[in-house]
Amino acid sequence: MRETVSIYRTKRLFSALDDSIDAVMIINSGMSALDENFLYLTDTRGGGFEGALAVATKRSVTVITSVLEEEIARRSGCKVRVFSSAKEREAKLKSIMRGKEIVGINEHGISHATMKWLRKSLRNIKFKDISKQLMRVRMIKTEDEIERIRKACKIASKVATEIPEILRIDMTEREAAAEIDYLLRCRGADGPAFETIAAFGSASSMPHHMPGKRRLKPQSVALFDFGAVHENYRSDITRTYLTKPKNEQIARIYEVVLKAQKAAIAEMRPGQVAKEIDAAAREIISDAGYGKYFIHSTGHGLGISAHDPGALAKRSKDVLRENMVFSVEPGIYLPRRGGVRIEDNVIVTARGVKKLTNASRELEII
Amino acid sequence: MRETVSIYRTKRLFSALDDSIDAVMIINSGMSALDENFLYLTDTRGGGFEGALAVATKRSVTVITSVLEEEIARRSGCKVRVFSSAKEREAKLKSIMRGKEIVGINEHGISHATMKWLRKSLRNIKFKDISKQLMRVRMIKTEDEIERIRKACKIASKVATEIPEILRIDMTEREAAAEIDYLLRCRGADGPAFETIAAFGSASSMPHHMPGKRRLKPQSVALFDFGAVHENYRSDITRTYLTKPKNEQIARIYEVVLKAQKAAIAEMRPGQVAKEIDAAAREIISDAGYGKYFIHSTGHGLGISAHDPGALAKRSKDVLRENMVFSVEPGIYLPRRGGVRIEDNVIVTARGVKKLTNASRELEII
Repeated sequence: MRETVSIYRTKRLFSALDDSIDAVMIINSGMSALDENFLYLTDTRGGGFEGALAVATKRSVTVITSVLEEEIARRSGCKVRVFSSAKEREAKLKSIMRGKEIVGINEHGISHATMKWLRKSLRNIKFKDISKQLMRVRMIKTEDEIERIRKACKIASKVATEIPEILRIDMTEREAAAEIDYLLRCRGADGPAFETIAAFGSASSMPHHMPGKRRLKPQSVALFDFGAVHENYRSDITRTYLTKPKNEQIARIYEVVLKAQKAAIAEMRPGQVAKEIDAAAREIISDAGYGKYFIHSTGHGLGISAHDPGALAKRSKDVLRENMVFSVEPGIYLPRRGGVRIEDNVIVTARGVKKLTNASRELEII
Repeated sequence: MRETVSIYRTKRLFSALDDSIDAVMIINSGMSALDENFLYLTDTRGGGFEGALAVATKRSVTVITSVLEEEIARRSGCKVRVFSSAKEREAKLKSIMRGKEIVGINEHGISHATMKWLRKSLRNIKFKDISKQLMRVRMIKTEDEIERIRKACKIASKVATEIPEILRIDMTEREAAAEIDYLLRCRGADGPAFETIAAFGSASSMPHHMPGKRRLKPQSVALFDFGAVHENYRSDITRTYLTKPKNEQIARIYEVVLKAQKAAIAEMRPGQVAKEIDAAAREIISDAGYGKYFIHSTGHGLGISAHDPGALAKRSKDVLRENMVFSVEPGIYLPRRGGVRIEDNVIVTARGVKKLTNASRELEII
């Protein structure tokens, strides 16, 4: 039998775990509570998997799901058990857990209510939090993950390149977001990686602005933060454009942010501590006098989730290793005036990093 | 001072709670773990609010957030406290909790890891699960909620009406989903209510199919399940179309599903038990010989979440009351052949229900 992605990943996870652990259980507590580790271990594509469970041992991964996702689960190559009621779900879980003593769980992905239910249902099992090991394993991307991220980055880069063609004075943020999401799918994405941000004018000073009815004005700024999903893996790119005539202040901070991003990327290599990378970007922005306007960290891990394990931040304890993937995204946000963020995705290689998003970062005035 | 939506909702919630409760705390455990009750109590629009907290007392709602969402939080009219590190977050939480003894939480929306952290940080506080009361309060929609849902339904209906114009033989599911999401925003949505489902041919037999590269064929079926978000509130509509020449089997199940949906809706009125509504739809489908192919419940609540509290299901204990909003969505799924689902949103009125999605449900062969 060909080894599925799911089995391969599970073996990697178990090699990072304490020998005493008999099984790993990932459980989706509710509708909007899909634990991304469920996707990691099962490699299922699509579906809500509300209340579904994945139980992994060293040799197999079983998905316990409602009939709604039965066919999707079967396509992953995992073993599948189907429930049609909460009672049946509990019975199938008990049966699969028989004989197991110590079971690893992700305490960060499981609701407190679900934990109470598990303790009541599986009285003889000792649960052990393995969230740290899961995160450590997920930080180092495998070949198949890298290929998928690469594709997601290629799609996002292509769309970024097309943005100057779709921008026109007087369009709304919402229209721009609609165009970007449309292009993402047309260029091959399974969908947008997260809610696309389109922020015009002073709204660009809010890093998590939601696109609204604001219109693009001359002598202004337009910031777009978006990504593609490809087979569960994500890209995350930000580009900021100016409209004519050039706003000198925004153009100035653009050059500072670009310099900061290049400095951060230049610091990245195996063995480097993550906080040094953050410091490299922060120093350039501070030296230019904008330190207090750089209100977030320099970057984060990227993979199944748009915010995967790993932080390029002031207090980060992470150390870079080959095949980690990061988003590098310094920004300067001037309240009520506007902001600039430039974000690219990179993979750590033997000697440094390789950029995966290749859309131009040079200042464009449209 | 004008009463904000946030304060109004908080008062409603407290009137449903035990007098001993000093405060209610909603906490977003992580990036992809935004508790929808956070949106309910704060009425913030947009933003990720990762790790943010809302603390409500009878008189005020305070948002404790990172600087990334500070401006978004301020717009809601809530009190705002900003943290720039995990340590500061804990300090602000401790200060706001001083003097409080019993605090209501939603055990279903809080991760087990977060619960452990809360117990360690706030040793003197007794936490009490109020998830049931939260759900009961949220089931009865207030005037402002109804207006927003109505708008979300209007947008989705408009887009549903336009689908026959965008469909063409040989287009992919992904292209269709891209068009639908684009139209949703053009017609006024803040964004899609959830990942739009577009399923062609046999894929329509999978209720949660993810749009892919499958192309629309003649004598086939095309199912679309989508909705609009408007100011945090959602619609959820499904339409199924046939392509020429007519597939007789699918056309037959279409008529059964439509009859089942109409029967379910006809049963809806204040005082009616939810499982009777499910039974009405199920009976028609079973009588037509397709009982085992109706693999989900007849409907669910709708509001801030696309799956809001409330279930029109076999084992539901819910009883309908005025101003509840439901999605009614019977379906028949023939494995490897195709499926039909028809879904509309209704509000329970004094005497029955009013449909909020008004796109035609009659069989269309394109």
